[in-house]
Amino acid sequence: MTNIQVQLARQPEGNPKASDFQVMKTPMPKVGAGQFLARNIYLSLDPYMRGAIAGRHMGHQRLNQGDVIYGRCVAEVMESQHAEYNAGDIVVLESGWQQFYVSDGGHADEVRKVDPGLGAPLSAHIGALGMPGLTAWAGVEKLANPGLGSTFVVTAAAGPVGGTAGQIAKAKGARAVGIAGSDEKCRIVVEEYGFDACVNYKNKNWTDDLKAACPNGIDTYFDNVGGPVLDAVTQQLNLYGKIVLCGLMSQYNRGADNAFNGHNMGPFVGKRAQLMGLVVYDYYNRMNEFMKAVAPLVNAKRLKFHEDRANGIERAPEHFVKLMNGQNTGKALVVIGPEKA
Amino acid sequence: MTNIQVQLARQPEGNPKASDFQVMKTPMPKVGAGQFLARNIYLSLDPYMRGAIAGRHMGHQRLNQGDVIYGRCVAEVMESQHAEYNAGDIVVLESGWQQFYVSDGGHADEVRKVDPGLGAPLSAHIGALGMPGLTAWAGVEKLANPGLGSTFVVTAAAGPVGGTAGQIAKAKGARAVGIAGSDEKCRIVVEEYGFDACVNYKNKNWTDDLKAACPNGIDTYFDNVGGPVLDAVTQQLNLYGKIVLCGLMSQYNRGADNAFNGHNMGPFVGKRAQLMGLVVYDYYNRMNEFMKAVAPLVNAKRLKFHEDRANGIERAPEHFVKLMNGQNTGKALVVIGPEKA
Repeated sequence: MTNIQVQLARQPEGNPKASDFQVMKTPMPKVGAGQFLARNIYLSLDPYMRGAIAGRHMGHQRLNQGDVIYGRCVAEVMESQHAEYNAGDIVVLESGWQQFYVSDGGHADEVRKVDPGLGAPLSAHIGALGMPGLTAWAGVEKLANPGLGSTFVVTAAAGPVGGTAGQIAKAKGARAVGIAGSDEKCRIVVEEYGFDACVNYKNKNWTDDLKAACPNGIDTYFDNVGGPVLDAVTQQLNLYGKIVLCGLMSQYNRGADNAFNGHNMGPFVGKRAQLMGLVVYDYYNRMNEFMKAVAPLVNAKRLKFHEDRANGIERAPEHFVKLMNGQNTGKALVVIGPEKA
Repeated sequence: MTNIQVQLARQPEGNPKASDFQVMKTPMPKVGAGQFLARNIYLSLDPYMRGAIAGRHMGHQRLNQGDVIYGRCVAEVMESQHAEYNAGDIVVLESGWQQFYVSDGGHADEVRKVDPGLGAPLSAHIGALGMPGLTAWAGVEKLANPGLGSTFVVTAAAGPVGGTAGQIAKAKGARAVGIAGSDEKCRIVVEEYGFDACVNYKNKNWTDDLKAACPNGIDTYFDNVGGPVLDAVTQQLNLYGKIVLCGLMSQYNRGADNAFNGHNMGPFVGKRAQLMGLVVYDYYNRMNEFMKAVAPLVNAKRLKFHEDRANGIERAPEHFVKLMNGQNTGKALVVIGPEKA
């Protein structure tokens, strides 16, 4: 048996290309004392990976040629010599872009057992019930806390963070308005996720569309993109409005020179804005609190998600490139193996 | 009798020059029904004026050639046909760069009577007990609220906003560290204002100096300058540190093209920073609360200020140019007439 891995072929320059990656057959890893073998089922693809590969994302060393790409997966424990994990357990862990992984269950692997009683599809544990969902919940519930009847705007609204954030804001009684990059994404945001409105920022007069969608102005802005969209939304922010700075998709593909024509802070002052940086790692220890709040919404189908799946680990590079070009719709994931053996 | 005015000669390009202003003898204004005549005693010079002249500062229309420059003064009422003001009253009002002004006491003039019982020197009412002091108090007390023993850093620390902010933070039990643009300013900040330390950001290794002055990192940053200093201080901010965005001196002199190489928001996210825009106008209605808190500190000489005076309204242009080039030290003001007639 072999273990197919996706490794770094070369550091991407600007937008990543499939040829920056190499698909390699490697020997099956062996399980030693205190370890377990995981079979990856679903691989999560996320924008932060672009920075992680380049060593720009916190806690991630810059990868070299031949290194397996970082990645979080839903996996099944196949064989275990670890006291806490048994064959058949379903876990979420940092097992990388590959079919199999041997973990010692240590801190770096961030292994979390999935409660089989939750009922949600397993793939949700890298989406609405995983890191993206935790990110959304932390930003909405712990930072912004949007008020009843207030207007909540979120970018990358079709994605797993933005889509979940808007639906959580709605569940808390706010009006949710999405911003996304295609009419199809906007359709999903409104028709599937149930947002009150969604604006396609690639339309020429999108800021007018946003104004029309937010007749009472914007009270909270959950930002996943930064760049000119952040500046444009800030213009429509109500005085003392809140901005959760979560992601900066607009600059993740920048080149090695880090050139970036940044933000003038003046408009934030003028709006008396409250900006809050959000890093989801701070909320790991609240995973149970998050699950208690959000899993019931998922199970009751009050919180929806839309997946963009690729089948087979070999397709991870092209699927990631699609994500980094904004061409995916919903949660990008790769199906590596079947849910049931 | 004449009224000497300083008018706009031409809109400044970049850093203002004295020749952008013209000093003109004009007829003495006449007092009508419902009006009073004010004799300006002290004119406050403040960085926001640069934007106000250009129409970039909120509530201020762009000035044309011949317009009197905007400015807040301590003045004496000389003659009154206004029910609320009597000859001999001392007021603070928006009376401009000139010797005399006739006010109708309306909203635009923002007239405020000075309580003669306070004991502080009259010039304090455009400094530590005026708008700059209110700005400092609002940012420290109402926004940042630095904790006991926490580290509070403020830029333009020799100036009336920064100097007052640091002293208020110290009065609340924080450690106050200033950043200023000369060794003499730093001397004043430490020896006169009593800050715990002050760093001259024009020294080559100033960020190392800041690190040494803040052994426990920075919990609160009260920013009056923006630009590269903001980015450098953010690097030393503790996680979840607060940044009060008050002034952006580094960009006030920019040209008409508004070109500005702005800020990358990434480091704010990484620090989980809380940024808060501060606009002092929001706190006018708390002037009494501010006075109750801060006037006793001034009277007890626990809150010090340092003035940089020019004598004669004719010298206002050169004094303003000095301020906008960072060459003043302390509160920039022009003595227009004697405190006592």
